[in-house]
Amino acid sequence: MTASLEDTVAAVRPADEQAMAAAREHQARLTKPAGSLGALEELSVRLAGLAGACPPPMPFPATVAVFAGDHGVHAEGVTPWPQEVTAQMVANFVAGGAVVNAFARQAGADVMVVDVGVAIPLHGGATLLDANVRRGTRDMAVEPALTHEEARAAVEVGIGVAGALADNGAKCLLTGDMGIANTTPAAALVSVFTGLDPAEVTGRGTGIDDATLDHKVEVVRRALALHRPDRTDPLGVLAAVGGLEHAALAGFILGAAARRVPVIVDGVIAASAALAAAAFAPDSVAAMVAGHRSAEPGATVALAHLGLEPLLDLGMRLGEGSGAVLALPVVSAAVRVLHEVATFDSAGVSEK
Amino acid sequence: MTASLEDTVAAVRPADEQAMAAAREHQARLTKPAGSLGALEELSVRLAGLAGACPPPMPFPATVAVFAGDHGVHAEGVTPWPQEVTAQMVANFVAGGAVVNAFARQAGADVMVVDVGVAIPLHGGATLLDANVRRGTRDMAVEPALTHEEARAAVEVGIGVAGALADNGAKCLLTGDMGIANTTPAAALVSVFTGLDPAEVTGRGTGIDDATLDHKVEVVRRALALHRPDRTDPLGVLAAVGGLEHAALAGFILGAAARRVPVIVDGVIAASAALAAAAFAPDSVAAMVAGHRSAEPGATVALAHLGLEPLLDLGMRLGEGSGAVLALPVVSAAVRVLHEVATFDSAGVSEK
Repeated sequence: MTASLEDTVAAVRPADEQAMAAAREHQARLTKPAGSLGALEELSVRLAGLAGACPPPMPFPATVAVFAGDHGVHAEGVTPWPQEVTAQMVANFVAGGAVVNAFARQAGADVMVVDVGVAIPLHGGATLLDANVRRGTRDMAVEPALTHEEARAAVEVGIGVAGALADNGAKCLLTGDMGIANTTPAAALVSVFTGLDPAEVTGRGTGIDDATLDHKVEVVRRALALHRPDRTDPLGVLAAVGGLEHAALAGFILGAAARRVPVIVDGVIAASAALAAAAFAPDSVAAMVAGHRSAEPGATVALAHLGLEPLLDLGMRLGEGSGAVLALPVVSAAVRVLHEVATFDSAGVSEK
Repeated sequence: MTASLEDTVAAVRPADEQAMAAAREHQARLTKPAGSLGALEELSVRLAGLAGACPPPMPFPATVAVFAGDHGVHAEGVTPWPQEVTAQMVANFVAGGAVVNAFARQAGADVMVVDVGVAIPLHGGATLLDANVRRGTRDMAVEPALTHEEARAAVEVGIGVAGALADNGAKCLLTGDMGIANTTPAAALVSVFTGLDPAEVTGRGTGIDDATLDHKVEVVRRALALHRPDRTDPLGVLAAVGGLEHAALAGFILGAAARRVPVIVDGVIAASAALAAAAFAPDSVAAMVAGHRSAEPGATVALAHLGLEPLLDLGMRLGEGSGAVLALPVVSAAVRVLHEVATFDSAGVSEK
């Protein structure tokens, strides 16, 4: 049974300071100069704090959940890609032919595809979960994208997926997304939750030209002026200017945090959802690991707002969960150090 | 039989432009927006150029060769760590207890340890190759670190290791190193090959304090003033101010390039050796992949001089090959895209 949004938010707790202290002490005894593993050391400490144990579990089994949805705002001409590509890429994920599939095979992660809001009815498949809340959002530039009930339902789809994966033993969850035009609602969400102007957080998505980017900023600006979303009401924000996959990802992150399972955040879609998750439950940030710095400006802004430093910075802007999956071996390496590396004492290595 | 330095240098050839063009064209047909994989796309193109084939082979089997040596300059007080730690850490590598071992298990790479210049006689082990040229270098601050013959012998140890691994089917080589005080000769090498002042390229190594850093810069400066190495004579440079592991790594990189096997460059020791390799054979740069940006300033300077952009930037400064091994999954992912991802045609996905 899926936990409600309220129960999930209530279950999110702060990191365990004692486990973090234990991880810091253990790092200092390992056969390496203090601090020489840089960001990996702090990551290992954070993961110990989340798990409430040192060492924290290795991040396997790991599953990337790719939440797919369509967007009414596509009608505003914010992208040159036809909307049907969302459904076509879902079929590509199910067939194992997309980049996220190749990266997941590489990293030893499973791929689960969730239809939370694709416009076109999809044919099922072993790895496709039908949880369609609505066949695409409404156009946020002219009306609220979702009703509060639809937004809540999508959030609870994400909570349910995270809970089911945790029940099945997942030790790491990864955010994935697919939805033609979905960087437009992501920009709107980042603008609302960070208070920054749409021009500062809206990016080129799949690679639009200057004129389309100017228009996209204007569309975001118009939607925000129309709805004036209140950032202290994250469900209202998601309903006004969100997407079904954004709402589901916010729930997925909250569900992971409630179960104390780390969740690797991918690009701007996931980062905008992470802002919503943090607005619901500030302590959920303890479960978040920023996989990479997407080329989308909104992703950098959102991660900075959350106080997260991305692990990778490769100029990627694909989505699908690709950047999160690419970071999984780094996360795993950080944890593995606490499990496997010898101490100065155990290895008979002299200290300075 | 080990190839000579001269034969190896002569065997290094430029990248294959035709294979690079084929990789670029293939990238453009894959089911993703053009350019959306950022640095991974250019990496896949470079690896195709090196292999002379598109797709290039997956980078497995992969071996990180950890070349260990000691340094006469240790007597100058450039580090608080006792010299015996080099041999102790070699034992740790052989026992599988060091960070590089944990990372290699993670990444699916083998670890090979090569004694090319450790001061203390070592007990063998299945993964320890005894190729000791000299039990540590001389103190470069008062005399040349090595004779030309010793430097050549160490370079040819590296060439031999790369050749043997390539003969055994290795499709990716990774640089590793161990040697207390070895960031001091690395700084000297970087200064010579880039022409920058020692103060700009000398770092804190394992984490020395300000006073020791000032002293270390002064030691490097003194050695360079004494020997006035000529950067157009890389063997002379390695002899004057190098280390046995630096020389071996230069040979290892040349050997990889001659066999057209990619070599992932770790931190400042490897980067300084890569400068020497490029001085011997400029086209060897085509075989180099910069694994990460070490916190050591000399590493950043050296990689920029070589025109290489590091894949990871995690504030690491451990050496051992740890940053190279951590980057292996990223390299593998870049290649895997060319092998496995569907095209717009094959997946029936619409283009914009």
